Amino acid sequence: MKTEEDFMRHAIGLARAGMLRGEGGPFGAVVVRAGEIVGEGWNRVLASADPTAHGEVVAIRDACARLGTHVLDDCEIFTTGQPCPMCLGAIYWARLRKIHYGFRIEDAAEIGFDDREFFQQIALPSAARRVPEVEVGRPEALVLAREYATLPHRTY
Amino acid sequence: MKTEEDFMRHAIGLARAGMLRGEGGPFGAVVVRAGEIVGEGWNRVLASADPTAHGEVVAIRDACARLGTHVLDDCEIFTTGQPCPMCLGAIYWARLRKIHYGFRIEDAAEIGFDDREFFQQIALPSAARRVPEVEVGRPEALVLAREYATLPHRTY
Repeated sequence: MKTEEDFMRHAIGLARAGMLRGEGGPFGAVVVRAGEIVGEGWNRVLASADPTAHGEVVAIRDACARLGTHVLDDCEIFTTGQPCPMCLGAIYWARLRKIHYGFRIEDAAEIGFDDREFFQQIALPSAARRVPEVEVGRPEALVLAREYATLPHRTY
Repeated sequence: MKTEEDFMRHAIGLARAGMLRGEGGPFGAVVVRAGEIVGEGWNRVLASADPTAHGEVVAIRDACARLGTHVLDDCEIFTTGQPCPMCLGAIYWARLRKIHYGFRIEDAAEIGFDDREFFQQIALPSAARRVPEVEVGRPEALVLAREYATLPHRTY
C-alpha cells in the first residue's frame, strides 16, 4: 500500500527528471484514485511552448484521457508545489476532491516563481486588474448563450 | 482591417459550431496579433474529455503552437464569455495584454455555468476553501526547489 509520501516522492521524481531535461520548472504532479496513480504530469511549459502545461494541468489531462472522463471526483492530486490560480481552477473544474502539495507558494517565490500576484489579481474586480478586460459584442454573444440554453442535450 | 466586433463574431462562430456538434458549452476564443488571428479555440470539454479544454485555453495553446512560443505579450484574446479563474490564470501566464469578452460571468450563470463560486474559492485563504489542500513531504520538495535554483540555464 502506497503512502501519501510515496505519491509525493513520485511527483518529485517526475518534476526532477523534466527539470533536468530543461522542459520546465520543478513542478510535477500525480492524480491518484483508490491508491493507484491514474495520471502523471510535469511542467512542460518550455518543452512544449505551452504556458498552460503546468504539472497539475498535464496530470489532470493525462488522468482524464486514461479514464475517459472529464470528471475526477473520486481522485486526489499530489503536486510538488502549491497550485497557482490556473491549476486551482483546473482542479475545481475536474472536481478533484483533495490537493496534496510539497512546497508552498512562498517557497516557490524564493526560487523566482511568484504566483502571489496572480492570486491578488484574480481576487480583484475585473476593472481593477492589471490586464484590461473589456466587453465587446455582448448582444450577439448573448444570443449564442441563450441558444445553448435551448439545446436538448446540453451537459455541464 | 478587421474590427473588434469581427474578431468577436469569429469567436462566436467557433463556439456555435462546436456547441452544435455537442463538443462543449457556448465558449469560443481567438488570439489576435497585429490585426490577425493567430490562434483559435472552442470549448471541447466533452469532445476531448478534458476539463481544461475551455475555449481560451485551447486558443492560447493553438497560438503558442503556431508561433512557437509560450509568451503572447503582443497578443490580445477575444472570448465569447468572460474568463473563469482557470482561463484568467492561463491568460496571465501567457502574458496576453488585453481581454475582450462577449457575455458576462452573470450571463453565463443564467445558463448554468456558474464561475462565481470558483472566484470566491480562489480568493479565500487555502485553509478556508472547499477542496482541502494539505502539505505533504515539504522537506523533499524543498530540496527539489532549491536544486532548480542552482541550475545554470533556468528560465521563467
